[in-house]
Amino acid sequence: MAPIDEADAMRRAVGLAARGLGATSPNPVVGCVVLDAAGEVVGEGWHQRAGGPHAEVHALRAAGERARGGTAVVTLEPCDHTGRTGPCSQALIGAGIARVVYAVTDPTPTATGGAATLFAAGVDVAGGLLADEATAVNEAWLTSVLRRRPFVLWKYAATLDGRIAAADGTSRWITGSQARADVHRLRAEADAVVVGSGTLRADDPHLAHRDAPRPDVPQPLRVVVDTHATVKPDARVLDAAAPTLLCVGRDAATGHLPGLDVLRLPPARDGRGLDLTALLAALHDRQVRSVLLEGGPTLAGSFLAAGLVDKVVGYLAPALLGAGPSVVHGVGIHTITQALRLDVADVTRLGVDLRVTAYPRTHPAPGVLEES
Amino acid sequence: MAPIDEADAMRRAVGLAARGLGATSPNPVVGCVVLDAAGEVVGEGWHQRAGGPHAEVHALRAAGERARGGTAVVTLEPCDHTGRTGPCSQALIGAGIARVVYAVTDPTPTATGGAATLFAAGVDVAGGLLADEATAVNEAWLTSVLRRRPFVLWKYAATLDGRIAAADGTSRWITGSQARADVHRLRAEADAVVVGSGTLRADDPHLAHRDAPRPDVPQPLRVVVDTHATVKPDARVLDAAAPTLLCVGRDAATGHLPGLDVLRLPPARDGRGLDLTALLAALHDRQVRSVLLEGGPTLAGSFLAAGLVDKVVGYLAPALLGAGPSVVHGVGIHTITQALRLDVADVTRLGVDLRVTAYPRTHPAPGVLEES
Repeated sequence: MAPIDEADAMRRAVGLAARGLGATSPNPVVGCVVLDAAGEVVGEGWHQRAGGPHAEVHALRAAGERARGGTAVVTLEPCDHTGRTGPCSQALIGAGIARVVYAVTDPTPTATGGAATLFAAGVDVAGGLLADEATAVNEAWLTSVLRRRPFVLWKYAATLDGRIAAADGTSRWITGSQARADVHRLRAEADAVVVGSGTLRADDPHLAHRDAPRPDVPQPLRVVVDTHATVKPDARVLDAAAPTLLCVGRDAATGHLPGLDVLRLPPARDGRGLDLTALLAALHDRQVRSVLLEGGPTLAGSFLAAGLVDKVVGYLAPALLGAGPSVVHGVGIHTITQALRLDVADVTRLGVDLRVTAYPRTHPAPGVLEES
Repeated sequence: MAPIDEADAMRRAVGLAARGLGATSPNPVVGCVVLDAAGEVVGEGWHQRAGGPHAEVHALRAAGERARGGTAVVTLEPCDHTGRTGPCSQALIGAGIARVVYAVTDPTPTATGGAATLFAAGVDVAGGLLADEATAVNEAWLTSVLRRRPFVLWKYAATLDGRIAAADGTSRWITGSQARADVHRLRAEADAVVVGSGTLRADDPHLAHRDAPRPDVPQPLRVVVDTHATVKPDARVLDAAAPTLLCVGRDAATGHLPGLDVLRLPPARDGRGLDLTALLAALHDRQVRSVLLEGGPTLAGSFLAAGLVDKVVGYLAPALLGAGPSVVHGVGIHTITQALRLDVADVTRLGVDLRVTAYPRTHPAPGVLEES
């Protein structure tokens, strides 16, 4: 293989990191490419699952003796602590790596310091290469570290006139097969998928992912926000395909739902539904680092009103309905100057549909967040 | 100038044709490039206004004697009839043009036949070059010829959740300055701009175009669909900046609006509002070949329900409101299988906003229309 430069190696490392999405929580996704002294790729690796070897260890194993005197290109600053695995800083030093190039500094108090340790051992260390790309692939984990709650991606599918269903409630299918397959990718990359009781009643969704690019990616936790425990025992979301957590109010009667994992939450401050901050805190305690919020419009409105949406992915079908429920309601906005503005990061055509990816302006991208 | 090939010349001709948009009705827009025998551009022209010289004549005048033995590349089949100007087929023959390449055949019964006349005179004639591009620039005129009514472009501006205003009715501004400037371009390109009385009451719009790329493009006819003649005499749409046509029901009292151009229309078949087919027929009689439908949601719904929308341009602001009126209602769609599907032709980012251009599937593009 011809030598490649460090930026190209970092691009490969970011791609490798992405393979771990959905499988590494509570850890970040990390990719690593080891170049020998001549700049040839001699090892690649990524963090595949929590508890398993880190990306650097996989890449160093693949490189073997050819790592000596070489360069490790890694998407996140190598860790400096002993958790379920040993510190990567020591592994790199032990393998004789002469230079480490990383993209993003590790913000975790217990893991940070890897760069300093490497430098003290005489390794040439450089940080910040392709930091934007590496931040993007790890946005969920970085946000969860900085906000101490899971990253929340709200996904919706609607017509150009903002309807998520027709007047009679039917919604299968607003979008085409490519957009729907993309939703399965989002589910596979998320630790948890959240829906409200209205969507449950209207659509009886299943919420497990199918056809994931990696069959070993675990199913997300299915989280049902159902204040009054109205879910029926035969709802598809309660089947055995994936774990399910039922979130109810303090006084909800759940006797008709034996054996279910039930989380009792306090009411929201405005009295509408449950306290979503408490929900996210509870999910964080369960190692959930990323949440895919699938709706419906009431629950999405509550998340948006609480400032708890970090990213929006809208699938827009080129269709008009002229009636039926809208994408979101109840955000608490009364006049145009209060509109919740977003920054569009990407627009992609998926078959006949459009996918718009955007970030609420009140939530700067994790790369520019101050540690709270 | 270096020689260019005929396809490049046709691309230039399409661009020249576009300069006439909004100023040529009831005629088409046409662009023409004359190449000399060596393939060099020696003349360019476009049809600038109804009653003025055709594109070919402008281009031949610019070329002078250098046209002899050359090629005329023109977006529409040269006309063969004497209207306010002489037939272009004869002008081309008289100038000694050896070859004519056109994109789209003229579907007008009185004007067609130019290609045959040229061929009979010994001119080499080829049709169909870049027909899609040339059809697109002339879509309004071609549709009006084939449907015998004006082309209707429905434009809206909305948030990602499909709201055209906030809960309190405010809508200035949902979109940014680039999107709003683009709307002025659409107004300048249209022969008429149509709004309903609801929009009039809510926004008191002016509807004249500002900052047109060509200051000599005439203002569109402002058409107010106002069944009960509720418009106030001091409405901005009634000022002197552009002509205004008030469309009312047969029995509407208009005594409080002296001097206004009033069109009385029969009621719609479903009893909701006015007969829009009759409206378009009346506009067609007034030489209107293209209509920009600016809303609001009720009028847009009526046009869509009647199958009278040929093209949709949606300006999507990356914002959420969670309340307020939706883009369109009253299309008569009850279930998802009845959704009005569109084909997206283009997605462009205008500043922070998106512009989605789409065609209703029930209305094939003019290029594939059968003559009715």
